[in-house]
Amino acid sequence: MTAQAAKTWSPLFKEALATDFRDFQECLDQDKRIALYDVEGSRAHADMLAKCGIISSEDNDAIQSGLATIAEEMKAGTFEWKKELEDVHMNVEARLTALVGDAGKRLHTARSRNDQNSTDVKLYARAELDQLARELRQLIAAFVDLAEQHVDTIMPGFTHLQVAQPITFGHHLMAYVEMFLRDVERVEQATERLNVSPLGAAALAGTGFPIDPEYTARTLGFRSVCRNSLDAVSDRDYIVDITAAGALIMGHLSRFSEEVIMWCTPLFDFIEVGDAFCTGSSIMPQKRNPDLAELIRGKAARMIGNLAFAASLIKSQPLAFNKDMQECKPPLTDTLENVRGAVTVTAQMIASITVKKAKMLAAAGQGYSTATDLADYLVRAGLPFRDAHHVVATIVGAARERNYESLADFTLTDLQSFSDVIKQDVQAVLTVEGSVASRAGIGGTSPERVRKAIEEVTNLLG
Amino acid sequence: MTAQAAKTWSPLFKEALATDFRDFQECLDQDKRIALYDVEGSRAHADMLAKCGIISSEDNDAIQSGLATIAEEMKAGTFEWKKELEDVHMNVEARLTALVGDAGKRLHTARSRNDQNSTDVKLYARAELDQLARELRQLIAAFVDLAEQHVDTIMPGFTHLQVAQPITFGHHLMAYVEMFLRDVERVEQATERLNVSPLGAAALAGTGFPIDPEYTARTLGFRSVCRNSLDAVSDRDYIVDITAAGALIMGHLSRFSEEVIMWCTPLFDFIEVGDAFCTGSSIMPQKRNPDLAELIRGKAARMIGNLAFAASLIKSQPLAFNKDMQECKPPLTDTLENVRGAVTVTAQMIASITVKKAKMLAAAGQGYSTATDLADYLVRAGLPFRDAHHVVATIVGAARERNYESLADFTLTDLQSFSDVIKQDVQAVLTVEGSVASRAGIGGTSPERVRKAIEEVTNLLG
Amino acid sequence: MTAQAAKTWSPLFKEALATDFRDFQECLDQDKRIALYDVEGSRAHADMLAKCGIISSEDNDAIQSGLATIAEEMKAGTFEWKKELEDVHMNVEARLTALVGDAGKRLHTARSRNDQNSTDVKLYARAELDQLARELRQLIAAFVDLAEQHVDTIMPGFTHLQVAQPITFGHHLMAYVEMFLRDVERVEQATERLNVSPLGAAALAGTGFPIDPEYTARTLGFRSVCRNSLDAVSDRDYIVDITAAGALIMGHLSRFSEEVIMWCTPLFDFIEVGDAFCTGSSIMPQKRNPDLAELIRGKAARMIGNLAFAASLIKSQPLAFNKDMQECKPPLTDTLENVRGAVTVTAQMIASITVKKAKMLAAAGQGYSTATDLADYLVRAGLPFRDAHHVVATIVGAARERNYESLADFTLTDLQSFSDVIKQDVQAVLTVEGSVASRAGIGGTSPERVRKAIEEVTNLLG
Amino acid sequence: MTAQAAKTWSPLFKEALATDFRDFQECLDQDKRIALYDVEGSRAHADMLAKCGIISSEDNDAIQSGLATIAEEMKAGTFEWKKELEDVHMNVEARLTALVGDAGKRLHTARSRNDQNSTDVKLYARAELDQLARELRQLIAAFVDLAEQHVDTIMPGFTHLQVAQPITFGHHLMAYVEMFLRDVERVEQATERLNVSPLGAAALAGTGFPIDPEYTARTLGFRSVCRNSLDAVSDRDYIVDITAAGALIMGHLSRFSEEVIMWCTPLFDFIEVGDAFCTGSSIMPQKRNPDLAELIRGKAARMIGNLAFAASLIKSQPLAFNKDMQECKPPLTDTLENVRGAVTVTAQMIASITVKKAKMLAAAGQGYSTATDLADYLVRAGLPFRDAHHVVATIVGAARERNYESLADFTLTDLQSFSDVIKQDVQAVLTVEGSVASRAGIGGTSPERVRKAIEEVTNLLG
Repeated sequence: MTAQAAKTWSPLFKEALATDFRDFQECLDQDKRIALYDVEGSRAHADMLAKCGIISSEDNDAIQSGLATIAEEMKAGTFEWKKELEDVHMNVEARLTALVGDAGKRLHTARSRNDQNSTDVKLYARAELDQLARELRQLIAAFVDLAEQHVDTIMPGFTHLQVAQPITFGHHLMAYVEMFLRDVERVEQATERLNVSPLGAAALAGTGFPIDPEYTARTLGFRSVCRNSLDAVSDRDYIVDITAAGALIMGHLSRFSEEVIMWCTPLFDFIEVGDAFCTGSSIMPQKRNPDLAELIRGKAARMIGNLAFAASLIKSQPLAFNKDMQECKPPLTDTLENVRGAVTVTAQMIASITVKKAKMLAAAGQGYSTATDLADYLVRAGLPFRDAHHVVATIVGAARERNYESLADFTLTDLQSFSDVIKQDVQAVLTVEGSVASRAGIGGTSPERVRKAIEEVTNLLG
Repeated sequence: MTAQAAKTWSPLFKEALATDFRDFQECLDQDKRIALYDVEGSRAHADMLAKCGIISSEDNDAIQSGLATIAEEMKAGTFEWKKELEDVHMNVEARLTALVGDAGKRLHTARSRNDQNSTDVKLYARAELDQLARELRQLIAAFVDLAEQHVDTIMPGFTHLQVAQPITFGHHLMAYVEMFLRDVERVEQATERLNVSPLGAAALAGTGFPIDPEYTARTLGFRSVCRNSLDAVSDRDYIVDITAAGALIMGHLSRFSEEVIMWCTPLFDFIEVGDAFCTGSSIMPQKRNPDLAELIRGKAARMIGNLAFAASLIKSQPLAFNKDMQECKPPLTDTLENVRGAVTVTAQMIASITVKKAKMLAAAGQGYSTATDLADYLVRAGLPFRDAHHVVATIVGAARERNYESLADFTLTDLQSFSDVIKQDVQAVLTVEGSVASRAGIGGTSPERVRKAIEEVTNLLG
Repeated sequence: MTAQAAKTWSPLFKEALATDFRDFQECLDQDKRIALYDVEGSRAHADMLAKCGIISSEDNDAIQSGLATIAEEMKAGTFEWKKELEDVHMNVEARLTALVGDAGKRLHTARSRNDQNSTDVKLYARAELDQLARELRQLIAAFVDLAEQHVDTIMPGFTHLQVAQPITFGHHLMAYVEMFLRDVERVEQATERLNVSPLGAAALAGTGFPIDPEYTARTLGFRSVCRNSLDAVSDRDYIVDITAAGALIMGHLSRFSEEVIMWCTPLFDFIEVGDAFCTGSSIMPQKRNPDLAELIRGKAARMIGNLAFAASLIKSQPLAFNKDMQECKPPLTDTLENVRGAVTVTAQMIASITVKKAKMLAAAGQGYSTATDLADYLVRAGLPFRDAHHVVATIVGAARERNYESLADFTLTDLQSFSDVIKQDVQAVLTVEGSVASRAGIGGTSPERVRKAIEEVTNLLG
Repeated sequence: MTAQAAKTWSPLFKEALATDFRDFQECLDQDKRIALYDVEGSRAHADMLAKCGIISSEDNDAIQSGLATIAEEMKAGTFEWKKELEDVHMNVEARLTALVGDAGKRLHTARSRNDQNSTDVKLYARAELDQLARELRQLIAAFVDLAEQHVDTIMPGFTHLQVAQPITFGHHLMAYVEMFLRDVERVEQATERLNVSPLGAAALAGTGFPIDPEYTARTLGFRSVCRNSLDAVSDRDYIVDITAAGALIMGHLSRFSEEVIMWCTPLFDFIEVGDAFCTGSSIMPQKRNPDLAELIRGKAARMIGNLAFAASLIKSQPLAFNKDMQECKPPLTDTLENVRGAVTVTAQMIASITVKKAKMLAAAGQGYSTATDLADYLVRAGLPFRDAHHVVATIVGAARERNYESLADFTLTDLQSFSDVIKQDVQAVLTVEGSVASRAGIGGTSPERVRKAIEEVTNLLG
């Protein structure tokens, strides 16, 4: 094929693309990801053209058979990509014409690469998002599984990374389930919002041919047809929707990963992650690093980059299509691939965790973590909360000076010297078990309540 | 009040905050925005405490009356903010206790600043988002109004900023309406997702008091109560949801602004923006600059910053609450204020636009914009599209060499020398009016179709 | 003053700015930060105009006296800002004309707000950066001070948050000094790069008046005059230079803050931060949170937002000046103010740290941290490193199975069962003190080497 | 090789990496880019080990020969990469040991992958930055060339995309040269700052072997050795330095590209870009799109993403090395490759531009672009500038009402009716040629001054 090939067969161009520019603009690596969707879209388009009498049914038969061959070649890895044909669309059309002759040249009737490309990317994104939603549900299931095993495993609840109050490990894990449930919703809403067919918008203005865009929309599983052709070819909002959802999913995984990393340090020693998700050191023979968790933190940063990229790309672009939009694909595919990977591997890693209950329990009592329970006790005995808070802070100060490990180290008499409303029954509120059990209201950390939450979520997921 | 004041009355602290640190961490400016929501939340909380028998109804009466006074003071601007009291919550509690004594000290029973603050911010965000949704609908109405006036005003449709095909200005404006409709959906979904009550989560683990969190949720208009107390106090996903929606809204406005700026340059001269939205120059007496449109482009960049800020903030934060989260408010309030401003002012500016139809029409014919129509004509005459495309490109090449302004400058005989399928009726497809009228399918640019689209959207908005 | 006021006295405008637009575009809050620099720039400009015979010396005297008055008013807080005068430049000119009459109207000869504003912002940025460089040096001094006290305090060195090898706390602190030294360099290079005078560029093309821009450059402390007037008024690269430097400085402080937060958790308990930099809880009486460190992490996210904002703002802006650039100031001032605050307060906080040496030392031995030393011992005894690594990993595996705390728990005979090259002298390499002392080369962690590094840095800073 | 291979030969690990995790963390594609630098670094390291007597000269000879073979294999594309060996370092060591036996196992003595990897990345970045600096200079040369041809080509100077004052096209191009000169400086400063050797830092603490890190630094062309081993292995500041420089370079190219796109629209029609940098349309036969310029705008967004990615990655990472840092490479390599591509192709595209002088000249007179000159004329005749500005604005208003194309359409008498200081000589200042010629001061747009600027820059570049 001659140099002109690169110019979409237009005799207007006297020169081929400059080689360096051709390499600079090349995006076949991205295009391969949407290639099968391109074929699927073209098949629906050709069917519609035939149905509307714009091409003959013979031509359609030829096109369908040619496209089926091309799909096979792609799946088998034998499809021959030609850089000089610029993109997936021109590669497919050229191959089709080689296979079936003039019918191939009729495929592009009543459409443009603008509506075609937007269709392809939407089909790709929709399929990936569907997979991601499924994988998020599996991730939730993995968290719920572990939470079920630990509804009464006591650990320290942290705020400001200081021991705040004792909680259950099951409760802690279920906090992430809430985040992931929101993520599923975001993913589903993004999918629904983009699932409108651009086919029929042609270059930007619609077409004069008597097409049936509702037919192609239906065939390809779209819920409707874009109401405005300019918007159809220039809308890339979904890249921002998806990269934003991706940044949040990875944000959530990075929060969990941060905790995993701390729980694995010998100074916490709360859990052990399975060998299959750790690596060693080339120099330090004793090392066992929770690499996956760290890598996910790094990938979370990557998602922020993709989000900023996508949002910047859209800014100030005049209608309708501009070549800038070729750059929509990298943040989209990079986000989807990395998020799906992270979700999948984290779900596996969760299952490999060994929990060191004794260590968690011991830490739960550190830092006078039942001080709030004592303050609440005083309130029940009649003190205004703010005064109770003050009394307990004084007691904690004394405990620190005496190097007490826990408020339970005080004798009753000692405690009464701080406030005479304190009675024998105070000891019950000073234990971590008592503290945890008492928080049984909606959202609370008690084993009983966590069991209910698990049940609710399980019902939600069906 | 003594230095200890700054330390929330805790006798544990021997030293006050360092002055420079106090200034560095000060956020009263942000807190003032949520102050009335804080009072509203506290009133619901106190009612609930009384209803559940945790405080007496006398105490509740005192609290309600004190908080009503405080709300009045805030509205009147007479509430005295004290920096050393750190934040809005402590300012309100201190003032309340000054007004009503010990009852004030009982208000903070069974809650923490963690669930309280999250509640306040959600109430603020919900109210702002509701306003924003309303304003977006007004913006849509303004675009629809202008579009209605211009369903048959012909202008050039651009791709790559090259004249591509003639379109109608009404059609062009309606493309933005599609974007804004998606924005409304995003705003509503973000509102719905955040509208779950954190009250009752207390510091992070729930509370041992027999509270009724469903009561406060109902009173404050939340759709339900958070199912997990750790998530309740550490979830700031909504900041990302909102800054992402804000970045897209401003992204859309920046696209339109970019076009307004170009349309106003003397080289386009398509429209004139009203004086009320332009400024002059301090040195060049003739200047008339579409300042609003340019500023909106700048603000779109600002929104990208807020989005990156919010997403980075969440990354790798361990549960549950950390002080980092204080920084959630700046991107939230900055986004909501700027987006609301931009939406409102753009809606006003739209109404001030004067359209120069003759200029638009003249430009619509430039660049051989009906070449696609000619190619489609050849297809209808039997040529495969790809061959038709080739023939027309050759014709365009000839037109360029002959310095023709339009394909209509060819005589029929001339055209027939390129392809003998061309007949007398070709002239109809070479005019911009004919081109526009022919694109009457779903999404198309014809006046008739644009009228239908306007009707649909008007019905949608009720 | 009439509505026209808002339009810079141009009779071309028939309407005043729309009120909502005026509020939306208002930036007096930003402008106040550069007001004194605006006066300084105007004084130099007027002097130059007089020196070049463009205005009379009487006019210049009047202008100088009027501007001196205005500067006094600004410092005293009595300068009356008028929103309808749009910006600082018009406010100053109006006040000047009110004070000194027609001479005031001559001040704007041979300049535009474009070169004037760029000058003001550069003067502001330069002064702030100079301060920041000074404060960074004070921060370095604070780290060096603490490092000096802890050249031989042993702590665990972490990689992947696993105990890797013992190091000294002084060495750890000096790692941050290296980062801050690079930051100083970045700040100084950014200062130097922006320090070129835009004055004389006028609106965008230079001026026809016979001005002497080198005179104003010299007077205002610039190193030279911009070589291109279009670039002079449209260059905002320095906002990116500064926000990038700011993001790195806060990135470094956030890394340190992350460590401070972990070191303060009871599970590490390595240090205590002074009361003056901690806060308590409204509900949990025992809490003592390292708030400053957490807030700095949050502010680091804010700086990333400012950076993305600045970089997006510049993207795709055509020459020369556009109103988008008004938005350059928020990321600039927000970055400089927050970074300066964080640097200053961190330097103070450093001085308040109490180090718990015993806890650090105990942790340094955890996780078989001298395994590398044992491997190196085997290498010195003739094993290839990779084989030595393998042998020691086997020894560590055995230690784990036997629940040994340290490799020193093995008897010599035990160790020899793993490798017969091990001799009596092995014990020396198994202690953390021995390990630390042995790393005495350039960059190493031994007390001796850290002392040298401190000396070098001290010399560098003069 | 067994599963254990993936675990760096450590017998501590009982399980291989999970397959999905292995795929998720795989980075050989990135590692291949630094592979030859890894070999270069290892050769220097082995030489040093031999020189210091840590390995024998026989072992060094074997290593050197093996590494030479490996480098050959890499260049020839025959090196066999093994996924299960995790990274480039382990691949090289395994191949080396296969080639030369036990000597290969000694190579990793006194170093870790931490210092090794940091060295490799720095060597890669330094080489790429050197190339980039060279390419930037070629880009500058291309701009200077075009500027030289157009020192007296008159075009409209825009502010707010309104015609502001006439300028020369040469002057406009030279504004970009100023930006690129700053970019060269940034690139060179980033190079200089990173050019410090991490080798010898080992895992994080230095090594106990008597190495000579100054020898390796010298051999590898570093200017010195890192003063702190913890910083040496955890510093990734240079990724931010480089992505920030990259974002600015692409920011500058995107500004120019935005202009090219506008200049190519038929409504401007100022220039034509060569066929080799344009593409056509699949549907519209007449289209000729300045694709390169649009793609560069898109890539500028990508660079903003890389910058946000890099800055987020560093935030809050504790010392010393964490796996997060693996993610440093993608933003680094993506930035360097895209920026280098964009710079190179833009330099070529510049040379293909055809300038349509008549169109530029005609536009330069639009919008009463010499109004400032008239105001300045009035100032020279004695009016205060602010009054002169007002008079000219009135004149412009009259011109608009009368539909004058230019201020030169007024008769002298007409003009005098606005101000009696106007004399016969006014006509000279009303022409665009006169306006341009008068701006001959430093930075001005006159042909004479632009010639001087070109000369200065040419001298600067040597």
